[in-house]
Amino acid sequence: MGDDIFSIRLEDVRQDIYNGIIECNVRGLMISAKWLAELNHGLDITKTGTGQQTANSHTNLIPYPAVQGISSSEYDAYHLAKCYYDCREYDRSAFFTATCESKVPQFLHLYATYMAKEKKWLDNLTDSANLNQSRNLKDLSDFLATLKALYAQRVMDGYMLYLYGVVLKKLDLTEMAITIFLESIHAAPTLWSSWIELAPLIIDRAKLSSLNLPNHWMRHIFMGHSLIELFLNDEGLKIFLDLQTAGFLNCGYITSQMAIAYHNMRSKIVYLLILQIIQFLFFLYRCR
Amino acid sequence: MGDDIFSIRLEDVRQDIYNGIIECNVRGLMISAKWLAELNHGLDITKTGTGQQTANSHTNLIPYPAVQGISSSEYDAYHLAKCYYDCREYDRSAFFTATCESKVPQFLHLYATYMAKEKKWLDNLTDSANLNQSRNLKDLSDFLATLKALYAQRVMDGYMLYLYGVVLKKLDLTEMAITIFLESIHAAPTLWSSWIELAPLIIDRAKLSSLNLPNHWMRHIFMGHSLIELFLNDEGLKIFLDLQTAGFLNCGYITSQMAIAYHNMRSKIVYLLILQIIQFLFFLYRCR
Repeated sequence: MGDDIFSIRLEDVRQDIYNGIIECNVRGLMISAKWLAELNHGLDITKTGTGQQTANSHTNLIPYPAVQGISSSEYDAYHLAKCYYDCREYDRSAFFTATCESKVPQFLHLYATYMAKEKKWLDNLTDSANLNQSRNLKDLSDFLATLKALYAQRVMDGYMLYLYGVVLKKLDLTEMAITIFLESIHAAPTLWSSWIELAPLIIDRAKLSSLNLPNHWMRHIFMGHSLIELFLNDEGLKIFLDLQTAGFLNCGYITSQMAIAYHNMRSKIVYLLILQIIQFLFFLYRCR
Repeated sequence: MGDDIFSIRLEDVRQDIYNGIIECNVRGLMISAKWLAELNHGLDITKTGTGQQTANSHTNLIPYPAVQGISSSEYDAYHLAKCYYDCREYDRSAFFTATCESKVPQFLHLYATYMAKEKKWLDNLTDSANLNQSRNLKDLSDFLATLKALYAQRVMDGYMLYLYGVVLKKLDLTEMAITIFLESIHAAPTLWSSWIELAPLIIDRAKLSSLNLPNHWMRHIFMGHSLIELFLNDEGLKIFLDLQTAGFLNCGYITSQMAIAYHNMRSKIVYLLILQIIQFLFFLYRCR
């Protein structure tokens, strides 16, 4: 995997990130957009060329390229719905995109519907201790049926697949959720939310190795993250060190993952030390 | 004023609204963007030309035109800060745009700084009853000094002027706030927040008439709003009726303003009726 990482072209990474941020922003996926922007901030600009070239590449990148996936006739409805979404008025946002057929407004409709359900669920919660309870199927059943129908029609893009995966995961349909997240990742590799939702569903090394991941630079970050989650700290750390060498120099996320790995390893050392002390005390006890 | 209203070209209004939405969106002014999108939604599309022409004019409008006011070298910092802002991490947002010199990131820095102060103030509030108390000068004094310096350098655009006005208004510096809001309105006429912040500072008809407002279609909406606020319901209602005739047909804001006017007028009738009943009862009492 090391060779793979070092062949990453930072110009491509940067372009992927820009496109990813825009795609996430138009869909209201703010956390993913933030994650990508932070990653972009930490890239080693000296590796993307000289200062002059970097400046040029910046001006060549269109800050807000015309977004694909919004038909001109649905643009007004989309924009109104997006403004409502930004103000966290999810029901209104869903209402104004209900009849839209192009990809972005359609996603916004589904996502706003989901967010409205989540908001109502949280508002009606009597006790915050119930937060981690698995959800009642009834609560999301109509919504799941809509998503299933869209999936059956094969009209879902990577972002809709992500949402479908999230709903399946909420309803503890784990195996199906893994399949859908993998499809989402193949269709929209820069959508970090899909990767991060998939990660906790991978419970062992064998499952991780068996995953059919896309050949994309995001895969390395996911592998590093998953390995550390599985307490395979040395391997995870190696991937992140390689990524840093390849140019992901000051990325806060990567540094924090490395910190977690070192912390885990330290915990392991402390654990071994405590074990040694106990054995020594037991030995002393026997020697009395 | 009636003739003025009927000469409004809805194509221009629509283009103004599009530009306004984009300018507000890149600056994180979500409420203004929502207000504009709602207004746009309510425009009478039959008056903007035939269906075919409308579709064409839509495709001619670039959904996300390259935004003015962000220099290419500050684009990354701006985007990171905007993502933080969208996630309501105001201090971080302000930090990453602190050294930016182009207009949009500079505004985002100031606005995020202000929002961070507001958030902290609300978090530290012991009692919600204190919400309407006027703010302590100390709380915003450093920030006011920064804004004053920028104003003195004459580098403020309409959006920065709006923020300056808001801070002045919070500190009860009303006359200065009116001057600044008027400057803001002249520089950025589609920024509804400036108009709506100015409106409650106009306490009588004479003051309203003396205002030097820009010759822009937004002026009519402001005039209607202010007249109804001053309980000059008939005049306000006339403006809104004229606006509806001119093509602002299904705009929720205009309809709600008209409802307020009718409600005020009804209150007046009820008040007169009660007065008549009291007089009648008094008359009966005397005739006993």
